[in-house]
Amino acid sequence: MNSLSEARVVTDPDVIDSYARDRTFLEPGKPLGVVLAASRDDVVTTMKWATEHRVPVVPRGGGTGLAGASVGTDGSVILSLARMTAIRELSPADEIAVVEPGVITADLDRAAREHGLMYAPDPSSYEISTIGGNLATNAGGLRCVKYGVTRDSTLGLEVVLADGRILNTGRRTMKGVTGYDLTGLFVGSEGTLGVITSATVRLRRAPAAPPATFAAEFGSLRDAGAAVSAIMAAGCQPSLMELLDRATLEAIDDWRNIGLEATTQAMLIGQSDAPDGQASVERMERICTDKGASFVAVSSSPEEAEELVGLRRLAYGAKERQGACLVEDVCVPRSVLPEMITAIEAAAARHGVRIATVAHAGDGNLHPVFIFEHGTLEPPAEVWAAADEVFTRALEFGGTLTGEHGVGLLKRRWLALESGPVASEVQHGIKAVFDPLGLLNPGKAI
Amino acid sequence: MNSLSEARVVTDPDVIDSYARDRTFLEPGKPLGVVLAASRDDVVTTMKWATEHRVPVVPRGGGTGLAGASVGTDGSVILSLARMTAIRELSPADEIAVVEPGVITADLDRAAREHGLMYAPDPSSYEISTIGGNLATNAGGLRCVKYGVTRDSTLGLEVVLADGRILNTGRRTMKGVTGYDLTGLFVGSEGTLGVITSATVRLRRAPAAPPATFAAEFGSLRDAGAAVSAIMAAGCQPSLMELLDRATLEAIDDWRNIGLEATTQAMLIGQSDAPDGQASVERMERICTDKGASFVAVSSSPEEAEELVGLRRLAYGAKERQGACLVEDVCVPRSVLPEMITAIEAAAARHGVRIATVAHAGDGNLHPVFIFEHGTLEPPAEVWAAADEVFTRALEFGGTLTGEHGVGLLKRRWLALESGPVASEVQHGIKAVFDPLGLLNPGKAI
Ligand SMILES: Cc1cc2nc3c(=O)[nH]c(=O)nc-3n(C[C@H](O)[C@H](O)[C@H](O)COP(=O)(O)OP(=O)(O)OC[C@H]3O[C@@H](n4cnc5c(N)ncnc54)[C@H](O)[C@@H]3O)c2cc1C
Ligand SMILES: Cc1cc2nc3c(=O)[nH]c(=O)nc-3n(C[C@H](O)[C@H](O)[C@H](O)COP(=O)(O)OP(=O)(O)OC[C@H]3O[C@@H](n4cnc5c(N)ncnc54)[C@H](O)[C@@H]3O)c2cc1C
Repeated sequence: MNSLSEARVVTDPDVIDSYARDRTFLEPGKPLGVVLAASRDDVVTTMKWATEHRVPVVPRGGGTGLAGASVGTDGSVILSLARMTAIRELSPADEIAVVEPGVITADLDRAAREHGLMYAPDPSSYEISTIGGNLATNAGGLRCVKYGVTRDSTLGLEVVLADGRILNTGRRTMKGVTGYDLTGLFVGSEGTLGVITSATVRLRRAPAAPPATFAAEFGSLRDAGAAVSAIMAAGCQPSLMELLDRATLEAIDDWRNIGLEATTQAMLIGQSDAPDGQASVERMERICTDKGASFVAVSSSPEEAEELVGLRRLAYGAKERQGACLVEDVCVPRSVLPEMITAIEAAAARHGVRIATVAHAGDGNLHPVFIFEHGTLEPPAEVWAAADEVFTRALEFGGTLTGEHGVGLLKRRWLALESGPVASEVQHGIKAVFDPLGLLNPGKAI
Repeated sequence: MNSLSEARVVTDPDVIDSYARDRTFLEPGKPLGVVLAASRDDVVTTMKWATEHRVPVVPRGGGTGLAGASVGTDGSVILSLARMTAIRELSPADEIAVVEPGVITADLDRAAREHGLMYAPDPSSYEISTIGGNLATNAGGLRCVKYGVTRDSTLGLEVVLADGRILNTGRRTMKGVTGYDLTGLFVGSEGTLGVITSATVRLRRAPAAPPATFAAEFGSLRDAGAAVSAIMAAGCQPSLMELLDRATLEAIDDWRNIGLEATTQAMLIGQSDAPDGQASVERMERICTDKGASFVAVSSSPEEAEELVGLRRLAYGAKERQGACLVEDVCVPRSVLPEMITAIEAAAARHGVRIATVAHAGDGNLHPVFIFEHGTLEPPAEVWAAADEVFTRALEFGGTLTGEHGVGLLKRRWLALESGPVASEVQHGIKAVFDPLGLLNPGKAI
C-alpha cells in the first residue's frame, strides 16, 4: 500500500485484535493489519491494493455490530472508516446532510438539532455506532416505529467499489427514479458490495416539544405484548414503544438499582411526539390498564422521561455484565407479538436457557438475548437449540431472522431457512457484479 | 404458448395496438400479441415460452405511464397484468395487504378505508393505474410529500423472473434486513427485471378527520414557488402541496370553467391531515400572504376541498385536450424551487414553446408539460431543445431527471447526463443477473 502513509496502516497485533472484534462473542481470525482511512482517497488506495494482491477487506465503523459482520478474518485487512468524521454539509432548507461514514450517529442528530431538525434513526448504540455502520446494517432504533429505519433516511451514497472505482448512487432530492435503486441495495449490504465513503441523508423536523412519555408495568410478559398489539392496532402512532422483560429489568436493576418490584414481569415504555402527544399517551395508558398493567404512569417531566428511555438504552450493556450474549433479532407481524413472546418463554424453559428479552415492540422486533457463561468461546449446545427454536417459531409466525442487526457471521446458519434458493442465487449474482473477486467482507451476510 | 387458453392470448391487431400504447405520444412498434394473464401460472407460462422462443416481453398494468415504459415494441409480447385484481388479504391488525398487480390503486385505498386505514401512494392517475405499474415505476403522488413514495409502502414482492422462476422478496414485517434489498431493486425497475405477480404492501392509519385545506393564488409563479420553499422550511408538514401554473389553470378552465381570474399566474393547493391540521394550514396561509399571494382561502367544507384536489387531478387530462404532450418530471431540492420555475419560464420563452407546469411542489417535483400540435408524431425540434434546457438546469440545481414517472423510452436520451459510466455499467450487470437474455422490456429504463 505504497501511497498510504505509515500512520494510516497499523500492524501491531494488539491493535489489530481490538479492531477485529465487534460486540458479539465471536473470536476473530488473524487479519494482516488495519487501515485507518482518513479520506476517500485512502479507501480507493486500499481497495486498489487489495484487488491487486487479492486480499480480503473488512470495512468497519464503530465495531458495535451484533452479528459478527465486522469481525476480522484470517489474512484480511480491516478498513476502519471511523476517522472520516466530517459533516460536509447540513442544509436546513432542504432538510438534508452530507456526511462521512465515521460520523457517530448521535453527533449527526445533535448537529441537526441546532437547526430544529433531527436525524431520526437512533439505534440504542447511537453514541458509539457510525453512520457508515448504520447504513451497512440498515439499522433501526427506538424512533423507527414512527420514522422508519436507516434506509428511509438515505437519499444517496458515494461508494468505493472493490476495484477502487467510485460509484455515486441516488440523489439530493426527496424523490427520484432514475435507474435501479442502487442506494437501497447498499443499505443493509454489510460491507459486502462496496465501501461507503459519503452519504446524503434526510433530516426531519424535530418535534416542537419533548415527547409525552408513559411507562407501564405488567405481571406477565404476554400481557405486555398484548398491550403493544392493541396500542398499534388502535392507531396510537407512538414515536417509541419499547418492551423489557423481567430478566432485562433485573440486569439493569443489578447495575443501576432502579428499585424493581418483585411482581413486575415486564415494562413497557411508550412515547408520542405528535402535537396531540399527551392525549395519545393517555390513550396508550388506558389500553395498558385494560390489558392488565399493574402500574401505569405518565412521566411528569422530560428529565424523568429521558431517564426511562436512557435505562432502555443500557439494556444490552447490563446483560453483557452478566455473561456472554447471543443476541437474536427476530421480527414478527405486530399482531402475533404475544404469541412470539410465549414461544420465547417456552424455548427458554424447554432448553433450560437464560433468555432476557428487550424489544422494539411497536415494530414487532424482539431481541431475545441468550446469556451464557463469560469466557465460553462458543455458546453451549442448549443455547443454539433454544435459538433455533425461537427463530423457527418466528418464521412460522410470518416473521424474519433479523429485523435490524443483519446476518453477519452469526446468523448465516439460519439464512437458508428464510431465503429460498432463487433469492440466494440472485444475491450471489449481484455480489459478483460489484465484487467479482469476492474481496469485500467475504463469508458475511449472504 | 400451449398451456395458455386461447381466451388469454389476443392477436387482433386493433386490440394489440390499444395495448401497445401508454399515455405518451410515442408510436408503438408491432407486437406479436397480448397475453391477458389471469394468474401467476399464466405469467410463468408466458415467460417460459418467451425464454424458449427468445421473444421480448413488455409487462403492462394500466397503460397510464408517461415515459413510454409500457409501449409495445416490434416482435414483443405484451403481458397485461390488468386482470389480476384480487386483494388476497387485508390485515387491519398488521396494517398490511397482499394484492395482485392488476388492482387499481384507488380500489386498494378504498378497501383499506373500510378498516380505518389507507393506502398512501396516490398518483393523480390512481383511478386508472395499477399497483403493479405503481411498483414498477415507484410512483409518487399527492400525499407522498408526507407519506413517501410507493417504495415506502412496499414490504415484499412475488416476482416471476425472465426464465419463469419465482422469486419471493422481502417480508410481512415492518422491518427486516435478511439479505440484499431485492424488494427495493424491483420497485422502480420498469418491468426490466421481472414481472411482479403479488405485493405485500403497508397500509397506514387514515387520519380521523378530513384534512384541512387551503388554496392560494399568486400573481407570479416564482412567488408561489417561494411560498412552497418557505412552507416546507418552516416545518408545516403538509400532507399535500400542489402547484399549478397559469397555462395549466387555463387548460382546466377551458374544460371545466373554474372562473379563473385574469391576474392569477399560479395556484397553490395545500392540505394538512395532522391532528393540528387547522392550525398548520393557517400557518401556511400566512406564509402565502407574506410571499405575496393575491388571494388565500381555507376551504370551508370537505366537499369544497375535494373539489379543489379533484381539479388538480384533472390537470393532465386538460392539457391532453389542447395538444400532444411531452411530460417532464424533474425533481430538485426544495429550496431551489423558485429558481427552477424561473428556468422553466426562461426555456419556454427562449425556444418559443408552450409549457404548462404542475408540481408536487412540496417534494420539489415539477411536471413541465410541453404542449405541441396534436397529430405530430415527434415533438418539434424546439420542444426537444426546451426540454433539454429544463433538464440540464435541473441537474445543475442538484436535481434529477425523473422524480416519479421513470425513464422508459422517453428519457433515455438524457440518462447518461445523470448516471455516470460506473452506475450505468453496474445497472447493466444487475439486469444481466435477472434477465441474461435481455427479454424483459428491452430498450427501456437503463
Ligand atoms: C448496546 C448496543 C445497542 C444496539 N442497539 C441497536 C439498535 O437499537 N438497532 C440496531 O439496528 N442495532 C443496534 N445495535 C447494533 C449496532 O450498533 C448496529 O448494527 C450499528 O449499525 C453498527 O454500526 P457500527 O458503526 O458499529 O458498525 P460496525 O459494527 O463496525 O460494522 C457493521 C457492518 O457495517 C459494515 N460497515 C461499517 N462501515 C461501513 C462503511 N463505511 N461502508 C461499508 N460497510 C461498512 C461492516 O463491514 C459490518 O458489516 C446495538 C449494539 C449495541 C452494542
Ligand atoms: C393523468 C395522469 C396522472 C398521473 N399522475 C401521476 C402521479 O401523480 N405520480 C406518478 O408517479 N405517476 C403519475 N402518472 C403516471 C402513471 O400513472 C404512473 O407511472 C403509474 O405508476 C403507471 O401505472 P400503470 O399501471 O398504468 O403502468 P403501465 O403504464 O402499464 O406500466 C408502467 C411500467 O410498469 C411496468 N409494469 C406494469 N405492471 C408491471 C408488473 N406487474 N410487473 C412488472 N412491471 C410492470 C411496465 O412494463 C412499465 O415499465 C400519471 C399518469 C396520468 C395519465
